[in-house]
Amino acid sequence: MRNVTIESLTAIDRRFPLLGGEGSDAVHTGAEYGYAVAELAAGPLRGTGIALTLGHGNELVCDAIRMLGAALPGRDIEATMAGFGAFQRSLADHPQLRWLGPHKGVTHLALAALTNACFDLWAKVRGVPLWSLLLSLTPDQIVNLIDFSYIEDVLSPGDAKAILETHLPTRDEREGVLTAGYPGYDTSVGWFQFDDQRVVKSALEARARGFRAVKLKVGSADGERDLRRARLLREALGPETLIMLDANQQWPLDKALRMSKALSEISPYWVEEPTHPDDIFGHRRIAEEIAPVKVALGEHVPNRVLFKAFLQAGAMHFVQADCVRLAGVSEFLAVSLMARKFGLPVAPHVGDMGQVHQHLVLFNHIALGHDRLFLEHIPHLREYLVHPATVEGGVYLTPQEPGLSCDLHPAA
Amino acid sequence: MRNVTIESLTAIDRRFPLLGGEGSDAVHTGAEYGYAVAELAAGPLRGTGIALTLGHGNELVCDAIRMLGAALPGRDIEATMAGFGAFQRSLADHPQLRWLGPHKGVTHLALAALTNACFDLWAKVRGVPLWSLLLSLTPDQIVNLIDFSYIEDVLSPGDAKAILETHLPTRDEREGVLTAGYPGYDTSVGWFQFDDQRVVKSALEARARGFRAVKLKVGSADGERDLRRARLLREALGPETLIMLDANQQWPLDKALRMSKALSEISPYWVEEPTHPDDIFGHRRIAEEIAPVKVALGEHVPNRVLFKAFLQAGAMHFVQADCVRLAGVSEFLAVSLMARKFGLPVAPHVGDMGQVHQHLVLFNHIALGHDRLFLEHIPHLREYLVHPATVEGGVYLTPQEPGLSCDLHPAA
Repeated sequence: MRNVTIESLTAIDRRFPLLGGEGSDAVHTGAEYGYAVAELAAGPLRGTGIALTLGHGNELVCDAIRMLGAALPGRDIEATMAGFGAFQRSLADHPQLRWLGPHKGVTHLALAALTNACFDLWAKVRGVPLWSLLLSLTPDQIVNLIDFSYIEDVLSPGDAKAILETHLPTRDEREGVLTAGYPGYDTSVGWFQFDDQRVVKSALEARARGFRAVKLKVGSADGERDLRRARLLREALGPETLIMLDANQQWPLDKALRMSKALSEISPYWVEEPTHPDDIFGHRRIAEEIAPVKVALGEHVPNRVLFKAFLQAGAMHFVQADCVRLAGVSEFLAVSLMARKFGLPVAPHVGDMGQVHQHLVLFNHIALGHDRLFLEHIPHLREYLVHPATVEGGVYLTPQEPGLSCDLHPAA
Repeated sequence: MRNVTIESLTAIDRRFPLLGGEGSDAVHTGAEYGYAVAELAAGPLRGTGIALTLGHGNELVCDAIRMLGAALPGRDIEATMAGFGAFQRSLADHPQLRWLGPHKGVTHLALAALTNACFDLWAKVRGVPLWSLLLSLTPDQIVNLIDFSYIEDVLSPGDAKAILETHLPTRDEREGVLTAGYPGYDTSVGWFQFDDQRVVKSALEARARGFRAVKLKVGSADGERDLRRARLLREALGPETLIMLDANQQWPLDKALRMSKALSEISPYWVEEPTHPDDIFGHRRIAEEIAPVKVALGEHVPNRVLFKAFLQAGAMHFVQADCVRLAGVSEFLAVSLMARKFGLPVAPHVGDMGQVHQHLVLFNHIALGHDRLFLEHIPHLREYLVHPATVEGGVYLTPQEPGLSCDLHPAA
């Protein structure tokens, strides 16, 4: 292994305007995305890690990156990644900063960016895309990437290793995804502030481009708007195209139950974030009462311990882990392994616009035996990315550039 | 009512050194407390609200106070407090800053400080201590202070009003606490880094000063140290004095079960934070398996929705709500009402060193019918406070100064 030392850490506050209702949902009405970027310099290489925000407040995450990341400069990247789980825990359990979470909110978003920057630098040192790097590691090496603290009662390091080893002999059966591509679903057609005509037109265009699944934002004060739009979309697309419905936490529990049942007439693939993301028993009740419609959530579940609780409760069907909400690639792997243990599919929320997750779903499918489902597609930040994820014929093309595909063009 | 307008908001970063192991536990080893202070100016009055940190990172909360609090200047305080629940929700659900939680971490700590500043200014405008102000309000006025969103399935505004109305006719039976004082328990005797002799000596002194209950920090890597110290303390104090044990989240679940059972030999009043504060089913299992020993937690449960989940799960016996972790006095009241609905006692964690909670436990007892239990006592910041809480004969003397008792002397 090459000895490559992290020389410096820079936190960069990047913001991106969203136009014409893009990105809007029933709860988040600001017209901006933000990335809190952790950039690690090592000779000519730059490790880039991101966390998503909605713009305002992004500077808090950047400041937290500087605080939590003070331990990074001077470290050897290969040595760091050889025991990243323990190292990450030492960052997450900083004796003073830990109080600000623990393991949630601004400081945990900062840990996401820092973790992803470490993984990006590591993959670039090795000259390979993340998916290839992860697939090249032994089960023990994967296990060492993960902080198992407080989830060991449902997933011990031994359990994780067993899942990895079980799927090693059959990897070739699943490696076809690398050439076939991983299916995407299009979130960009159904933003909350788009009018009905635009939603229908965009959805038909998405299908013409090969998408087999699209998302519609719901959660209007007047539930009738949701019903009207869902029906319009189902009528326009016919019965074959999958439709995901996303309420973005807008509904109180009673309304979540009522609206989910009413919307079941269009046979949604899932209902996403029907209520507050901390309401574990609320989600369990929804999951039980709206069956056979399924519940998806995770974009606001902050860490592996709360995912454990949702899994133990039987409160989710689709695990929407997000490596720019969780503590990066490392905690995403922990949640993916837990989900596999519980027999539930992982369908990431893409706060990263799919850039890192296009790698992670390949690993999940090939190495963990997770189903080849759908990866969310949101193209609004393509112009800012050096290697924007590319979807053709409805599938993500397997990325070939080294790293996590998160490098951004310099700000204008 | 007087018309008093909030003229300006200032966020102040205050830090306080802790000497000789004060404040130390198994997880938090920094020797500092910090208050992120929100100060509202209105003519000659200053409304002071605090959130606790452990020093480093306090500036993040101060920055978040400035961001979230931008809506405060120009508002009339009486009008604001007449519908504070709805107003607080509008702050908590800021369309961009909400992403950084929601309702947890740095931004929620900022909301705690802002909320407490509003309550402090309000009480000062009326010229009364917080407990007196709260007791003077009608049930409807109390209900209007609270954001019930996402807890209405277990506590609707109507439920809350009914609890308040039920206890109105019998208030005089409980108002004796105002002259008798609310019992304290002494946390300052048993910090983690204190040696055995100091713990025993301090505990005996505390009992001589009238305390009937003391806390010992546990969670050593070597469980033998915990057992030795717990036995020493029980031997020194005899069977009558209550001993609370606090692991500060240190134990993984299996160790939490093992150590709690082993420590049950000294008959602790409760075992506090045995494991990670997001591990709902872990705590339920502990609560079930270590009975009759009881479980206390809450200082790191960030909001009313997660408290709801713990209550629904049967995962806690003592509800350690903290109004400088939750969104201030307002969300503390929400949790106190939920706890009452579930029949569980509230024994606050005092991130505020008891300054605000000495008011809140009086309200809880008199207006909600909560038991008169014990309020934590931590005296290390007395010199910085204008009106430090005073414990005599083991009871908190009822505060008489207007407001929340959180004013700090100016920094040196």
